[in-house]
Amino acid sequence: MITPLPDLLIAPIVRAALAEDLGRAGDITSQACVPAEARLSVIWAARRPGVLAGLDCARLALAELAPEAGFIALARDGDTLSPGQVLARAEAPARAVLAAERTGLNLMGRLSGIATLTRAYVDAVAGTGVRITDTRKTTPGLRQLEKYAVRCGGGVNHRFGLDDAILIKDNHVAACGGVRPALERARAAAGHLVKVEIEVDGLDQLAEALPLSPDVIMLDNFSLSDLRKAVAMTAGRVTLEASGGVDLTTVRAIAETGVQVISVGALTHSAPGLDIGLDAA
Amino acid sequence: MITPLPDLLIAPIVRAALAEDLGRAGDITSQACVPAEARLSVIWAARRPGVLAGLDCARLALAELAPEAGFIALARDGDTLSPGQVLARAEAPARAVLAAERTGLNLMGRLSGIATLTRAYVDAVAGTGVRITDTRKTTPGLRQLEKYAVRCGGGVNHRFGLDDAILIKDNHVAACGGVRPALERARAAAGHLVKVEIEVDGLDQLAEALPLSPDVIMLDNFSLSDLRKAVAMTAGRVTLEASGGVDLTTVRAIAETGVQVISVGALTHSAPGLDIGLDAA
Amino acid sequence: MITPLPDLLIAPIVRAALAEDLGRAGDITSQACVPAEARLSVIWAARRPGVLAGLDCARLALAELAPEAGFIALARDGDTLSPGQVLARAEAPARAVLAAERTGLNLMGRLSGIATLTRAYVDAVAGTGVRITDTRKTTPGLRQLEKYAVRCGGGVNHRFGLDDAILIKDNHVAACGGVRPALERARAAAGHLVKVEIEVDGLDQLAEALPLSPDVIMLDNFSLSDLRKAVAMTAGRVTLEASGGVDLTTVRAIAETGVQVISVGALTHSAPGLDIGLDAA
Amino acid sequence: MITPLPDLLIAPIVRAALAEDLGRAGDITSQACVPAEARLSVIWAARRPGVLAGLDCARLALAELAPEAGFIALARDGDTLSPGQVLARAEAPARAVLAAERTGLNLMGRLSGIATLTRAYVDAVAGTGVRITDTRKTTPGLRQLEKYAVRCGGGVNHRFGLDDAILIKDNHVAACGGVRPALERARAAAGHLVKVEIEVDGLDQLAEALPLSPDVIMLDNFSLSDLRKAVAMTAGRVTLEASGGVDLTTVRAIAETGVQVISVGALTHSAPGLDIGLDAA
Amino acid sequence: MITPLPDLLIAPIVRAALAEDLGRAGDITSQACVPAEARLSVIWAARRPGVLAGLDCARLALAELAPEAGFIALARDGDTLSPGQVLARAEAPARAVLAAERTGLNLMGRLSGIATLTRAYVDAVAGTGVRITDTRKTTPGLRQLEKYAVRCGGGVNHRFGLDDAILIKDNHVAACGGVRPALERARAAAGHLVKVEIEVDGLDQLAEALPLSPDVIMLDNFSLSDLRKAVAMTAGRVTLEASGGVDLTTVRAIAETGVQVISVGALTHSAPGLDIGLDAA
Amino acid sequence: MITPLPDLLIAPIVRAALAEDLGRAGDITSQACVPAEARLSVIWAARRPGVLAGLDCARLALAELAPEAGFIALARDGDTLSPGQVLARAEAPARAVLAAERTGLNLMGRLSGIATLTRAYVDAVAGTGVRITDTRKTTPGLRQLEKYAVRCGGGVNHRFGLDDAILIKDNHVAACGGVRPALERARAAAGHLVKVEIEVDGLDQLAEALPLSPDVIMLDNFSLSDLRKAVAMTAGRVTLEASGGVDLTTVRAIAETGVQVISVGALTHSAPGLDIGLDAA
Repeated sequence: MITPLPDLLIAPIVRAALAEDLGRAGDITSQACVPAEARLSVIWAARRPGVLAGLDCARLALAELAPEAGFIALARDGDTLSPGQVLARAEAPARAVLAAERTGLNLMGRLSGIATLTRAYVDAVAGTGVRITDTRKTTPGLRQLEKYAVRCGGGVNHRFGLDDAILIKDNHVAACGGVRPALERARAAAGHLVKVEIEVDGLDQLAEALPLSPDVIMLDNFSLSDLRKAVAMTAGRVTLEASGGVDLTTVRAIAETGVQVISVGALTHSAPGLDIGLDAA
Repeated sequence: MITPLPDLLIAPIVRAALAEDLGRAGDITSQACVPAEARLSVIWAARRPGVLAGLDCARLALAELAPEAGFIALARDGDTLSPGQVLARAEAPARAVLAAERTGLNLMGRLSGIATLTRAYVDAVAGTGVRITDTRKTTPGLRQLEKYAVRCGGGVNHRFGLDDAILIKDNHVAACGGVRPALERARAAAGHLVKVEIEVDGLDQLAEALPLSPDVIMLDNFSLSDLRKAVAMTAGRVTLEASGGVDLTTVRAIAETGVQVISVGALTHSAPGLDIGLDAA
Repeated sequence: MITPLPDLLIAPIVRAALAEDLGRAGDITSQACVPAEARLSVIWAARRPGVLAGLDCARLALAELAPEAGFIALARDGDTLSPGQVLARAEAPARAVLAAERTGLNLMGRLSGIATLTRAYVDAVAGTGVRITDTRKTTPGLRQLEKYAVRCGGGVNHRFGLDDAILIKDNHVAACGGVRPALERARAAAGHLVKVEIEVDGLDQLAEALPLSPDVIMLDNFSLSDLRKAVAMTAGRVTLEASGGVDLTTVRAIAETGVQVISVGALTHSAPGLDIGLDAA
Repeated sequence: MITPLPDLLIAPIVRAALAEDLGRAGDITSQACVPAEARLSVIWAARRPGVLAGLDCARLALAELAPEAGFIALARDGDTLSPGQVLARAEAPARAVLAAERTGLNLMGRLSGIATLTRAYVDAVAGTGVRITDTRKTTPGLRQLEKYAVRCGGGVNHRFGLDDAILIKDNHVAACGGVRPALERARAAAGHLVKVEIEVDGLDQLAEALPLSPDVIMLDNFSLSDLRKAVAMTAGRVTLEASGGVDLTTVRAIAETGVQVISVGALTHSAPGLDIGLDAA
Repeated sequence: MITPLPDLLIAPIVRAALAEDLGRAGDITSQACVPAEARLSVIWAARRPGVLAGLDCARLALAELAPEAGFIALARDGDTLSPGQVLARAEAPARAVLAAERTGLNLMGRLSGIATLTRAYVDAVAGTGVRITDTRKTTPGLRQLEKYAVRCGGGVNHRFGLDDAILIKDNHVAACGGVRPALERARAAAGHLVKVEIEVDGLDQLAEALPLSPDVIMLDNFSLSDLRKAVAMTAGRVTLEASGGVDLTTVRAIAETGVQVISVGALTHSAPGLDIGLDAA
Repeated sequence: MITPLPDLLIAPIVRAALAEDLGRAGDITSQACVPAEARLSVIWAARRPGVLAGLDCARLALAELAPEAGFIALARDGDTLSPGQVLARAEAPARAVLAAERTGLNLMGRLSGIATLTRAYVDAVAGTGVRITDTRKTTPGLRQLEKYAVRCGGGVNHRFGLDDAILIKDNHVAACGGVRPALERARAAAGHLVKVEIEVDGLDQLAEALPLSPDVIMLDNFSLSDLRKAVAMTAGRVTLEASGGVDLTTVRAIAETGVQVISVGALTHSAPGLDIGLDAA
């Protein structure tokens, strides 16, 4: 079950998004055309199948403009949605509903799009025990929300930033003069709660890395055949992560090579938004 | 030619994105594995064909961490890119380059993705004189950058928020008791520099709106046949904007009905990122 | 009727103003001299005739320091006030009332001063159908509040910033090499929801501009006689805005020339504050 | 001579003001009509006589958009200005000059207006040795700048907030049960670097306050005759501040009663802006 | 009795501290191990003797994550605590309690440590009438809270910043060419609500300063014998503040020389935190 | 060698600290007593032995007020300092030097105090191979700087927040119904780059935890004898961290039991500041 993010982390993003949309004069259309005292009953509904993420964004956007709004959630983040399914309902001043509408939908649509795409990858590797993970290719300012959406889709999170795990890439290996010295320096520098991962670009680098027991080895752009060899060489001593060239047509075959983790940048950098709408109830 | 956004508007977003990535300990991998004095010469290169937008983001991300970095732009926002094309080069402390890399790429990749998709729509309607425009379905916090990317791709911008134009939708019409009273109230309330647009859902509403001379009428989810009838009824007196059900397979036919503007939400809510990489030079 | 701004837009300004006044130690006088448990019943009252704007600022300032304060509004923004008229009453912890007093009064006094001056201009042109509008000569950080105050006084708003309408001035004309090329470039660049205004400094420039049908033409520092000629030349095809040399002694005559809009910088840059006081009830 | 405020205190205000004016799309007029490479030489000039305050705001506004702009100050804050006097000149990219123009003028015009009005009061009491001081009736967010402008005009500053001096008013006296207990509590609570002022509304309260030696006594709305009596009773033992009913027609007579300080709320709440313009050089 | 700071001043610090601790993924341990619906009853208890300061920080930290938490204060800031004493109790969702725990304790522990150390100094000079005061050697960002903690411990506050009192030090004296010109310039510049203090490094400087009647003279690093001479020379005309070389073993003797104030930098720069814990109730 | 934090992470803290100290009027003493054109050559010097951390704070504080200041570092973070040792020198406008002085010293003194205390612990366990680590008991808002100071002193960092590692404590164990289910849930939830630590309060819990192979086991408040038993039971399969009851008199004996890591809350919550001064050169 998905653990919702605390409002404390979401609310500032929602507030900034509302301010961005309201600009310097607020919703001038509703001010002109909707009486101040008018109220509106609305529902949020999925227009397409998908996976829900970010329902709290819609609730908070409305609550910022109408603290007393009655908002009732009818679905939960992580739920599989069918077209037409009602996600929530609310009854509130019409101007607040209309002014908050797009902000809530923009966030929820984006996050649900990520969750939906993640779920597609997770389903594609069902039964293999492989975990689908994200990357740092996220939208600036929304990383924690987007990584949360990955969890809603059944994925697990890779590191959250440059600071919470060591990930040695080609430039680092080059700067250190090889896989071995790079891993030795990383080990010496890492605190006891920091994991060390290294990216290798071929079986020879894998062979060099294995004796130094990094926590994770990323196999970058390996062929299926090399992935299988890597799994055999590693024999379960280190977690293997496949990366590069992953899409929905290739992910199953990659998973079946025996790696434990597959990372997919597209989860966050190229997921189309999920179409969710707001309708008068 | 594209007018770049002033750094004043971009820099806070870049700084926030860097801070999000650096977290509370900075780039612990480079700290461990790259000597403080090491320098790196790098190039940014397109991996796929597309349209460039946001090159300044890469420059600013690097400049935040290495103010003295030598950054040389070799392309300009709005340029059509071929795979492998070099966009910029820089020479700077290696740690700064590696720490700034992802932030710059995330922003530039997202914006170039939007520009690329916009260009595809613009190209699809080439010769018709129709303008492709965006919507408010943007990423919270990035609206001004994403609308800029739409311009880079050759599109024009719809309103930037709820406050800079009046757009009367179905809920407003319902609250006012009809198209006519809604437009009358809007006219009375609008300042002399504010345009008024109304969304209509059928030819009867169009007929009701036309005598009141709104600046723009949005034809929402009209069939091609109804679009043609709408163009004929309007006879050029009001700008017509087609909206809904637009994709790359349908946009040409819509354009050929004679509307002046076509709005496409997907430009910002569903554009896949453009793959741009950073390589040692 | 005036549409109040959402609290979301006002509250950050009120909070910042309170923090500015409380400094690093809070209200040290009340801490020393007023018991923590003391409560105070107060009223806000106009000391002079005027027009109310910004009553919500007083409410929010108090609510920030005493969320449970009972605040009852007895007037509404846009109301004409007579001296001594009670605007609101509240009952709350005395320390909160005294600490919030000046912040609320400073904002409400400034905004009501703007509304009052605007109303004077609006009254001066009563019956002519002319609209009084503001400029961008506002207090940094308070533009949206001050433009709201103009609306409370019966004025309409000019553009809110450099981004929501095109206003071509002398420097732009010079840079483009004339009125015609300037208007042509503006038209080509403007989105379909953006209006284009041009400032002209004489009848010859007006004649040059008219055939290009800008949305608005600003007649800058025209004599009454030239204003009349401009109105005749234009014959209602374009909205005319008179600007420059406007004060309460000249505005009526300007209005009677037949222009549609008169812009007055003094509304926001030189309105004296309205004297409003807080008294024990 | 006036000590300029450090840029550190001004720059955030200038940046926020620029962002407020640029909105979400920047200066769309200059983007359309002014070539990116065009440069402009400009001067800032006074249109009316007055006192300068805030020239740094114009410099910083331009520098934010064009860090390399050549800005040469030709006057200094506190200078008396004659109409047409050139205050500064600059040469910079035209788009930056035009986008920064209003922000710099808005701040400088407001501050110079305050300095100009302050100077009028200071001149009115010339030779009496009386000091003109401000109040907390300042624009929210601009208090430090406006109090600086008062200094530019030759005034001295009253307290900056609720926290840097004790000022006992009627409500505090009422809460303590009299002038004596109020002053005793204040003395006990005040740190050794905090001054204590008390507001009295008549000679009887003055008599009650004097034996307790507050640092300053504010004589609120005293008649000239009572002010003279108060000066006599006090005999120089305590600083006396006259407050209330002060304008340019009354201030001289008040000063001649022998009080040391006169506070004038209008300095900051009702000073008209000084007209300063930007012209092509 | 201690006047609590308004929540308005504390809450932003608490929110920033929570955000710092929650990072980009929140409390991943509780998310994994504690059911969303679990609730927890807890108490805050002192583990060591001391003086309480900052209980509101614990309340606000919890309220940010669980607005509906029932929090009952059982002690008040300024109270003397015995080991095991229960300070507050709460009943709230377990995840919120655990996520807020450290933020509240960090602030309360630090502030209570300052209050405790202050109390030790205040007790050490009991009966002498001397006031213990702090310095500007505070933690960046927490000055107002730390100065509040000094008040909780029975101390009084020195100036809060560079702007609320004049304190002339050796560099200023040198720049002015002596004690006399320095004091004369200060007097001329100071507003009527600003006190002037001067630091002197020997009896000769004291003799030079006394005729100019500064409000306070700081005796920097004087021997006990010189302090006594200074007190005799001053004869009560000016407040004397001893500074430098003060610790708990020397403060009594310094107090007995007859100075009125002793400033102690260690109160804020070197107070060990007070050990306070959170326990299941 | 110590990797300095990027200025990007330090500068906002320095700026906020300067603003806190400058308040609303700036350094009024230097404005009154120091000529605007005066310059000052100064050195920063250690008054006591210790370990340096945070020299960049002094540089940045000065640079904020005098961008052109010549600042020359003569020592590096992590250096062992002897009393009187000169750390840096600068030549700059006197007012800037004096206004920036305390902000730089406050940060550098606090951080160096932490580095100095850390070094004492590190030295106390020299030769044992044990690593000294910190906790989350840091100053709100300064965690990243304080953890950096721990590194300057030779320590390693524990987790930076609630989000970058799992640390199962007694409440979590209770909520899960035992050590085994708690560890199983944590394992299932943790991403592949997240380490899992569990706190045990006795040898029985240790025995329960060991078969589940957490990455780290924290032995909370174990006696020396139990620590030895724990080391024997564990036989190197899991990293052991001793916690609780650690001070400079006990840490050596704890280290000699064979644990790999010892965590010390006092490093950040109770380190006295290191006395560093600024002197005219």
